Amino acid sequence: MNLPKANLDRPVAVIGAGLVGAGWAIAFARAGLDVRIYDANPRTAENALPWAATQLEALHRHGLIDEAPATIAARLTLADSLAQAIDGAAYVQESVLERIDVKRQLLLDLDAVADARVIIGSSSSGIKASDFACDLRISPRVLIAHPVNPPYLVPVVELVPSTQTSAETVAFTDALMRGIGQSVVRVRKEIEGFVLNRLQAALLREAWALQRDGIASCEDIDKTVRDGLGWRWSFMGPFETIDLNAPGGVADYAARLGPLYHSIARSRTNDGPWDDELIARVERDRRQHLCADELAARRDWRDERLMAFAAERAKHAADS
Amino acid sequence: MNLPKANLDRPVAVIGAGLVGAGWAIAFARAGLDVRIYDANPRTAENALPWAATQLEALHRHGLIDEAPATIAARLTLADSLAQAIDGAAYVQESVLERIDVKRQLLLDLDAVADARVIIGSSSSGIKASDFACDLRISPRVLIAHPVNPPYLVPVVELVPSTQTSAETVAFTDALMRGIGQSVVRVRKEIEGFVLNRLQAALLREAWALQRDGIASCEDIDKTVRDGLGWRWSFMGPFETIDLNAPGGVADYAARLGPLYHSIARSRTNDGPWDDELIARVERDRRQHLCADELAARRDWRDERLMAFAAERAKHAADS
Repeated sequence: MNLPKANLDRPVAVIGAGLVGAGWAIAFARAGLDVRIYDANPRTAENALPWAATQLEALHRHGLIDEAPATIAARLTLADSLAQAIDGAAYVQESVLERIDVKRQLLLDLDAVADARVIIGSSSSGIKASDFACDLRISPRVLIAHPVNPPYLVPVVELVPSTQTSAETVAFTDALMRGIGQSVVRVRKEIEGFVLNRLQAALLREAWALQRDGIASCEDIDKTVRDGLGWRWSFMGPFETIDLNAPGGVADYAARLGPLYHSIARSRTNDGPWDDELIARVERDRRQHLCADELAARRDWRDERLMAFAAERAKHAADS
Repeated sequence: MNLPKANLDRPVAVIGAGLVGAGWAIAFARAGLDVRIYDANPRTAENALPWAATQLEALHRHGLIDEAPATIAARLTLADSLAQAIDGAAYVQESVLERIDVKRQLLLDLDAVADARVIIGSSSSGIKASDFACDLRISPRVLIAHPVNPPYLVPVVELVPSTQTSAETVAFTDALMRGIGQSVVRVRKEIEGFVLNRLQAALLREAWALQRDGIASCEDIDKTVRDGLGWRWSFMGPFETIDLNAPGGVADYAARLGPLYHSIARSRTNDGPWDDELIARVERDRRQHLCADELAARRDWRDERLMAFAAERAKHAADS
């Protein structure tokens, strides 16, 4: 697989070395970048290295990296402090806990030590940058760069500027992300959940309501997507799917099916939150198909399937 | 690829020979069944045969059928009348126009000529069987069997009984559909749009609103799904995806992300229909990526990708 090489002569820093941060470290190192990893909990940072080594072996097995796993792993180094991690870095990927106060504190700390050039991307999956990254010296250089987990397998990344992010920051991060092989989505206005989790929320809202109302089981709803809807979405997305699904394209499709979809939308206007009873119900339904003690093994299965998917996708890269 | 052979000693009839009906004919014939095709417009029925021959060649090229295309095509015959099509048939797949009056009229015609054994599945993609199939002699033997197009490639089929459908009818159709290799979803209560189009409607509702509000372009929304969300959905579905996406499974996930999703749901409660202005806007956006005169070629590309997806899926069939 031919990966683009990022054109960057300075290292990047990954702050927060949980699954998301460590996954980012692989994505950067795979593209040839030196990566410094820092976590406020030293044990978390230390664990990231053997975990990354294991993932790199799996990527190699699936033909998803050309270099030896050890060559890529050698680009990962642990930093003893935040200041050391970002010293001279071109870019910082922040992947600390998804909580406004935690992210705000990290931004305050970065503001105290960052040089005037570094760009900071946040892995926030739904909290807007304007809620935690404004009114600082570094604010023009901060934006959201939200991945799907794990970012070294699933390529999409949403770039969402805050109200104070500069155009140069967006352009730099866009180029960097394309440079390491990610698929960049430009979100033009801030909105809670951005695009990815809003789309997921919409599908889940309906899925949970169908299960709650006894229309279908979790397994049958999953089957509807994995053996049906999900096929075209996985290589075209929803707009292209419907554009090709009526003789005259998307406007023709809207004329035919718009009334049905509007009627369905009107039937979902006042759902409450997922309450404890509903969560327990869905939990029981899922546990009929997968015991709690099989979750970890099934996650390994998922990652193998994602790698097979990525390898298959790479074959079609020229054909899209 | 090993296809199951349907255990049925009588032919099936396909009524309505447009894309959906002709696609069903391939799915039945591929499994070894004799198929009689009838359309009120004889030209439509005649066109179905060469079209099916072309599709069978493509399936053969992708390793999706073991028999020679001509062997399978030889199981397709045209019927001169509705009565001739269903005479002695075990099962009728109705794929006429998606309009209550048209479907009701067909059911009245079938009621007049059907024998006491035939089971009738309707390809209706959103209209409930109770809206057109009740209070007839054949009503206990009618249900919805809604496919994704084309049914010989994408395996899911939703079975939705009307209030008058017998349990035997559901059991027979479930066994038949499994017998020809479809993935059966049992919808337990009638609801407009069933499961598949309700899930699609939910995603499209959000997608159109994001485009309308200037948050992201059609292309960026498609990218979010095809390079992100769609990967896991294409082999796991939405419930298994979230069940594996938190250490403690789906209940743990709901505790973490339920509040975000509820907040997003509350922000989508009063959308109007897709009006002409919005449809024109989406149409313009899509046409920047695909000219209207390229739609047909892009549909061929889609079908090739679906066949490659089906071939890849077959490899993982034992591994799910």
